[in-house]
Amino acid sequence: MPAINGDEYISRIDQLKTTVWIEGNPVTGNISEHPAFKGVMNSQKKLYDLQYNEQLKNQLTYQSPLTEEPVGMSYLQPRTIDDLVKRRTMIQYWAKLNNGMMGRSPDYMNTVLMAFASSVDLLRGKPNCFPENITRFYEYARENDLSITHTFIDPQVNRAQYYFEDSDEPIAAKIVNRIEEGIIIKGAKLLATQGGITDEILVLSAAGFDGKERGFSFSIPSNSKGLKFICRDSFVGGNSAFNYPLSSRFEEMDTIVIFDNVLVPWNRVFYYDNVEISNSFIEKSSYLAFTLHQVVSRRIVKTEFVLGVVQSIIETINIMDYQHVQEKVSEIIVALETMKALVLKSEIEAKVDDTGYMRPDQLTLQIAINLFPKIYPRFTEIIQLLGASGLMTIPTENTFQSSIKKDLDQYLQAKSKNAEDRIKTFRLAWDLTMSSFGTRETLYERFFFGDPIKLSSQLYFSYDMKPYLKRVETFLKTDN
Amino acid sequence: MPAINGDEYISRIDQLKTTVWIEGNPVTGNISEHPAFKGVMNSQKKLYDLQYNEQLKNQLTYQSPLTEEPVGMSYLQPRTIDDLVKRRTMIQYWAKLNNGMMGRSPDYMNTVLMAFASSVDLLRGKPNCFPENITRFYEYARENDLSITHTFIDPQVNRAQYYFEDSDEPIAAKIVNRIEEGIIIKGAKLLATQGGITDEILVLSAAGFDGKERGFSFSIPSNSKGLKFICRDSFVGGNSAFNYPLSSRFEEMDTIVIFDNVLVPWNRVFYYDNVEISNSFIEKSSYLAFTLHQVVSRRIVKTEFVLGVVQSIIETINIMDYQHVQEKVSEIIVALETMKALVLKSEIEAKVDDTGYMRPDQLTLQIAINLFPKIYPRFTEIIQLLGASGLMTIPTENTFQSSIKKDLDQYLQAKSKNAEDRIKTFRLAWDLTMSSFGTRETLYERFFFGDPIKLSSQLYFSYDMKPYLKRVETFLKTDN
Amino acid sequence: MPAINGDEYISRIDQLKTTVWIEGNPVTGNISEHPAFKGVMNSQKKLYDLQYNEQLKNQLTYQSPLTEEPVGMSYLQPRTIDDLVKRRTMIQYWAKLNNGMMGRSPDYMNTVLMAFASSVDLLRGKPNCFPENITRFYEYARENDLSITHTFIDPQVNRAQYYFEDSDEPIAAKIVNRIEEGIIIKGAKLLATQGGITDEILVLSAAGFDGKERGFSFSIPSNSKGLKFICRDSFVGGNSAFNYPLSSRFEEMDTIVIFDNVLVPWNRVFYYDNVEISNSFIEKSSYLAFTLHQVVSRRIVKTEFVLGVVQSIIETINIMDYQHVQEKVSEIIVALETMKALVLKSEIEAKVDDTGYMRPDQLTLQIAINLFPKIYPRFTEIIQLLGASGLMTIPTENTFQSSIKKDLDQYLQAKSKNAEDRIKTFRLAWDLTMSSFGTRETLYERFFFGDPIKLSSQLYFSYDMKPYLKRVETFLKTDN
Amino acid sequence: MPAINGDEYISRIDQLKTTVWIEGNPVTGNISEHPAFKGVMNSQKKLYDLQYNEQLKNQLTYQSPLTEEPVGMSYLQPRTIDDLVKRRTMIQYWAKLNNGMMGRSPDYMNTVLMAFASSVDLLRGKPNCFPENITRFYEYARENDLSITHTFIDPQVNRAQYYFEDSDEPIAAKIVNRIEEGIIIKGAKLLATQGGITDEILVLSAAGFDGKERGFSFSIPSNSKGLKFICRDSFVGGNSAFNYPLSSRFEEMDTIVIFDNVLVPWNRVFYYDNVEISNSFIEKSSYLAFTLHQVVSRRIVKTEFVLGVVQSIIETINIMDYQHVQEKVSEIIVALETMKALVLKSEIEAKVDDTGYMRPDQLTLQIAINLFPKIYPRFTEIIQLLGASGLMTIPTENTFQSSIKKDLDQYLQAKSKNAEDRIKTFRLAWDLTMSSFGTRETLYERFFFGDPIKLSSQLYFSYDMKPYLKRVETFLKTDN
Repeated sequence: MPAINGDEYISRIDQLKTTVWIEGNPVTGNISEHPAFKGVMNSQKKLYDLQYNEQLKNQLTYQSPLTEEPVGMSYLQPRTIDDLVKRRTMIQYWAKLNNGMMGRSPDYMNTVLMAFASSVDLLRGKPNCFPENITRFYEYARENDLSITHTFIDPQVNRAQYYFEDSDEPIAAKIVNRIEEGIIIKGAKLLATQGGITDEILVLSAAGFDGKERGFSFSIPSNSKGLKFICRDSFVGGNSAFNYPLSSRFEEMDTIVIFDNVLVPWNRVFYYDNVEISNSFIEKSSYLAFTLHQVVSRRIVKTEFVLGVVQSIIETINIMDYQHVQEKVSEIIVALETMKALVLKSEIEAKVDDTGYMRPDQLTLQIAINLFPKIYPRFTEIIQLLGASGLMTIPTENTFQSSIKKDLDQYLQAKSKNAEDRIKTFRLAWDLTMSSFGTRETLYERFFFGDPIKLSSQLYFSYDMKPYLKRVETFLKTDN
Repeated sequence: MPAINGDEYISRIDQLKTTVWIEGNPVTGNISEHPAFKGVMNSQKKLYDLQYNEQLKNQLTYQSPLTEEPVGMSYLQPRTIDDLVKRRTMIQYWAKLNNGMMGRSPDYMNTVLMAFASSVDLLRGKPNCFPENITRFYEYARENDLSITHTFIDPQVNRAQYYFEDSDEPIAAKIVNRIEEGIIIKGAKLLATQGGITDEILVLSAAGFDGKERGFSFSIPSNSKGLKFICRDSFVGGNSAFNYPLSSRFEEMDTIVIFDNVLVPWNRVFYYDNVEISNSFIEKSSYLAFTLHQVVSRRIVKTEFVLGVVQSIIETINIMDYQHVQEKVSEIIVALETMKALVLKSEIEAKVDDTGYMRPDQLTLQIAINLFPKIYPRFTEIIQLLGASGLMTIPTENTFQSSIKKDLDQYLQAKSKNAEDRIKTFRLAWDLTMSSFGTRETLYERFFFGDPIKLSSQLYFSYDMKPYLKRVETFLKTDN
Repeated sequence: MPAINGDEYISRIDQLKTTVWIEGNPVTGNISEHPAFKGVMNSQKKLYDLQYNEQLKNQLTYQSPLTEEPVGMSYLQPRTIDDLVKRRTMIQYWAKLNNGMMGRSPDYMNTVLMAFASSVDLLRGKPNCFPENITRFYEYARENDLSITHTFIDPQVNRAQYYFEDSDEPIAAKIVNRIEEGIIIKGAKLLATQGGITDEILVLSAAGFDGKERGFSFSIPSNSKGLKFICRDSFVGGNSAFNYPLSSRFEEMDTIVIFDNVLVPWNRVFYYDNVEISNSFIEKSSYLAFTLHQVVSRRIVKTEFVLGVVQSIIETINIMDYQHVQEKVSEIIVALETMKALVLKSEIEAKVDDTGYMRPDQLTLQIAINLFPKIYPRFTEIIQLLGASGLMTIPTENTFQSSIKKDLDQYLQAKSKNAEDRIKTFRLAWDLTMSSFGTRETLYERFFFGDPIKLSSQLYFSYDMKPYLKRVETFLKTDN
Repeated sequence: MPAINGDEYISRIDQLKTTVWIEGNPVTGNISEHPAFKGVMNSQKKLYDLQYNEQLKNQLTYQSPLTEEPVGMSYLQPRTIDDLVKRRTMIQYWAKLNNGMMGRSPDYMNTVLMAFASSVDLLRGKPNCFPENITRFYEYARENDLSITHTFIDPQVNRAQYYFEDSDEPIAAKIVNRIEEGIIIKGAKLLATQGGITDEILVLSAAGFDGKERGFSFSIPSNSKGLKFICRDSFVGGNSAFNYPLSSRFEEMDTIVIFDNVLVPWNRVFYYDNVEISNSFIEKSSYLAFTLHQVVSRRIVKTEFVLGVVQSIIETINIMDYQHVQEKVSEIIVALETMKALVLKSEIEAKVDDTGYMRPDQLTLQIAINLFPKIYPRFTEIIQLLGASGLMTIPTENTFQSSIKKDLDQYLQAKSKNAEDRIKTFRLAWDLTMSSFGTRETLYERFFFGDPIKLSSQLYFSYDMKPYLKRVETFLKTDN
């Protein structure tokens, strides 16, 4: 089975009967019909369906090197700059379907897995490493268009700098046994987004983990025995697209992942019991280069949407002639065009890596992810500053369907919109920035690649200062 | 009847049967039992009950000059600096009951009305002005401990600088008739916070309104014929104090107020058909001086609470040794102590005004309200930056009451708290900054006294530059 | 005579005997030997000499289409993207000679003139327009490698929004007579940088000028009769490269330009008495596209230098392990790489304009100039925050040549440098950010393209919001 | 001899013949006539003279408890809040003479010494401590109106966190011998402001110093044998008050202090060879409380001056109607009134300390010094943003005295000023923010109390969070 359509996705996930706890109860029945998941699963469905759109098919899929069947473009291992452009084009087509609000549309994890598969040479001949398992799993996922989530953060017990867990019962997930069938995992990992509504979960160690039994990487089906996903409360406001245009569609859910002595069969283990590899694989692999490329491409679409919402508010209440309004919008324009420029530069300065794949320039993309966690919250602030009381004057759809409608029609009309359209615009702005869904989006963008302060330290240490330092030294030695 | 207790408040409001529309339906039955209002009305009840707390009685009430019965301290017309301190003390006792989260606890409008009553001399002998109505209504409100809301903003149809409404049917509320019994009002006003759960609504024109028929001020009972309050959707997350520690208690609701040919009887008209007074009364009266004093006093309590929440997060996950954490918290400390200093200065530099009342220094308080709309959003940002993934890892109370509890106990424990207490702390931080309730609080603080940009223009024009300008001019004329 | 060398530049300017007033006296003798000008003229000399460097000749010059002699690459009218890259390469070679500190190295005005010449079609057939004069002057300048300054700002008499000059005697320069030989100009223009040390001065109206007699454009020799340049005080600290590594070399001087009934011969008039053209030529021509490309290319080199200085300080006193230091430097890295990405994008998205020349994408470059005035001052702040007391501990070269040297050697040594090298590093950082020269550089970068607030308004109005607005409108119409 | 006049100050300093090196030469002759020092010494002279101004005498001096002669008010050991107000009043009278530009007007060090003398109890009975020496020296200084500088920072060799000097020859000053006559000091200390133009220098260890031989405190005459002051280059622009209104008067000079085996006689040693006291005396004493009170009082006067300069620019070029201008000025107003409020609060919340003196509330003043290093640089930025090209159009006084004057008169006139006055205004703004003098002022204010990042850490750790933390904990335990 090649690239799937939406129904196939829905039915496959429904059949898994993964253990998902929400509000103190396990999900029973079809998860795609559960109020907390149906919106996002429906949006995901539309992504898969788009693969069979006649006009876009060639942009969203490519011919499998194994079967010649069409497979998802986000699985493509790029060998040329043109391949990178193809990948970005596909990513942005999908992103436009959800206006970039789904941080974990399947192309993200497809990209992760593709990067793993493109970096297996780093594992060859290393103890307790199984590059062939990665290759095989990558091909299997590609040919079956699997959806995947992942998890790598340890529970936030104590964030002091030199904390190491000291507990008989594991808290952070670790290997508690190695048996003939595979390794046994016990403990927890944080936050699998879309946890419970994907086929598989890829599990790996964050760098700087604690002890060899916490150094591993593997993928298992979501319905593996002993595996539990515990949800936060749902941020779906309700079904109404009028009231909750975003959360009714794009609420991806974040889950705590609990491994209750879960068996990982050997053919799904990528590496284990190898501190050095576990600490370095992500950094040396093309993981960051490719995921950054996916994320920044998506964020561009999201920023375009924010800009559209802002301009829509401005026109609705006719405030474009205020200089401070122009100034605020120009901040968003600057951010958007900067992101576009950075993606472009990352592609043009892409280089073929040691394993023959075309990596976008990672440093250029690091610039983009240093910027975004600072500017995205500013976008939401700008929307609040421009929307003002309009973001509180937001009666719901039912009100417009009641006898009070004629009052609303009269008193909530705006310069360029009737009352109903005006309230829809402001409810969208509210859902984007002020609903529980919207603020979770903001938090998500703040921390997508980790603590912003650490991101800047990483950038500092990965940047080559020598040429500029040398220029200064030379200058200092020059006489007048 | 003097200062009331909580039950009296509840029963009086329930009996009004005010017309309140929410989610397309009018509220029927007791509004104090409606899910959208019961939390906040219960919190309001506690405020009134506190007036009968034996230890605080003398701080929360004073002897009515008419009846010698105890009446609410926020009605006190101050004649000395000590009176101002008494007022602040009372305001902050009430604020501590809700941690400053209720921007419209009754002392706010009591203060507004007290300021009106203390400025009636400005209306004496002016056409269409009835200072005696204000005095009488103030005394009536004080002696009966009325709760009041107010409204003055016109609908946000078109916010261009020189827009004037041009519509046969009024949009912004205006006088459509003057009859023997009083004036008739038709049109809408925005946003009465707590609209529908107060005894009365005070209505007035914002400066710069359009046409003499829009220049007025009056107060009428909430259940006046033709008066309708239309609600946005409720931001009460639910009943659970564990899940929604703030919204289950302090969600004040904002309403659009519709006047459907409402009769305002003459004895409740304060002024009308007087453009000059309508444009200048607020500015010349002690309105701003006294309301600013109330608001800044409350915000101090709120900031203390924010600081407590931040430190609670820090200790829970043990991050106090990071310099950037210290730096962020110090921003809040600086803000808090600055606000305290400004209130103090406003009291020490208070002056008796023309009508014999002691006004706190208004300019000093303007400083405080220029600061707060900028720093309060920063507080919420700091909480998100420190709370990080902890603000997504927030399963609900039910989850702790299910069979999955033991997993949570193990995997969500923190350095200084068990799992349940840790989640309560983070859910509080979330409800403060990320729930629909929390973001509405942020928006409310951003715009409490209007557009922050206008606030700074007002400050510029009200500040006396002459002494400093003169110092510079003198200096420039001095030779070496 | 094709591309000149440095001696030719010096001798040509010396011979002009332009009227330049400084400190209340006219410059007499060779201006290249005057303390206020010799440093910068010597730096300019080196730029011209570089054109004859064997290794760089092909990158710095191209074959004149008229004479096949080598002429300066900054005169090249680009027809391909490759031409744009050639232009940037040349610009950055020159910039590296002065580390981007010379905002008006001759390539800037060469670019301006090239843009004029490439846009002459806009003037064809328009009243009082002489496109052929531009073409002829461009060729003359190119073939003779003229140096040019320009001026367009009116004196800062009154900056209110609707101010128009009302004075019998002109203040802002205007045409006071049209005679057989040409037009007569009287009045002043601000600020010709390098005024007095160039062959020519190009004069033009800023948009929004006042009255047809203020709408013109022409170029005349610096030594035209009645033309006077009045200098501010010189910011050359002194001759010593140790003490004043920047100001001793790169102080470009800003001058007020006074036209005392100056005759502009007809063959040097580009247009006059044409309000419409005077108001629109700059905007419609390729002026902005090409000058922005030059400026951003130079600023990249300057930012690299700033980064080098910052890293040099960090290594000197060994502070790279502080997280806040890493964070501050990363701000500079982000800015630098962003600028590089934007230039690249402007080239890749360049389009052939109506007159057949390849224009870099102007909007992309507008992003860069909206950014830079905000970040360059932050660079100087970062240097001060990192340099700290080291920026006050800066004894001069003489001190190191006195008997006190051994004390300095001992007490001012640093982790990675001896005392003398350490002081040189810090004096460089000081000259870059704290000397009168350094702060003038900061002011210059703040206002290079005008008021930053106006830049953001221009960006807002020139940006095409429609596609994003439409995406939002479509989304709002979609049901769940 | 009680409070001195200016001539006495000048003649006493001239007679000292202190060893001061500048530009590679020792100062010979009267230092008060040296171009680098005469301006500031003349300004200092005026301060002392003011003590004999009939109208101000009682505000600037008080009766010596020893002699009943008038002595400088900044020596007053406060016992009441009124004493604090007296101190502030005096400090601000002096500050107004130099518009707060002299960070080290003598009242600063008088305050330091007064604080030492008021905290001697901390030294009683401690090894190697001589409280009686402090008391005696304080009285001697007070009765003779000594001027003093101080130094405590070690040379900036290596600023890594765990650096300790490892050098045979001392770099940071330390005790190299203890002999019968006293202790012998060798090494260097940074940066004595006004070093060389005061009677005495007070030397002490910064907290966290390295080794007991670096733990000491003493005061010695500036002309002690072996003591050398090495100057940075002078930032006096010249003599002209027109050209350099600030640097010609207030350039205080910063010096490196070298101890070439300097003998400190025992009666001038305050403590030595006592690590614990050396590390804690400053923190436990009233040093910070009193110096912060002096500094914040001075900074208020400086901020008033900045505000005057800003408003002067605004009126000169008529830009007060721009909203962004109003907003920028309001930032300064907010800062000014905040500082005033904080000083007031520090006085009202002052408490009598263990030794019977009235200490202003230190924490409140810490707030002020956390704010100022961030806002003062913003003031200078605002001046640049408003002054714009006017800060480059600054011909010098000589130009106005030449034949070109009539051109300047015509072309540089402004809305509300003639050309000459306009240029004086802008040169003042330039000297305040862009001359080498002005930027040194900015750096000085940035680092007055040390690294701003450390200041915020100190604030965090000195703030009592418990009440707020407890309020949160109580709230979390409350059910609905």
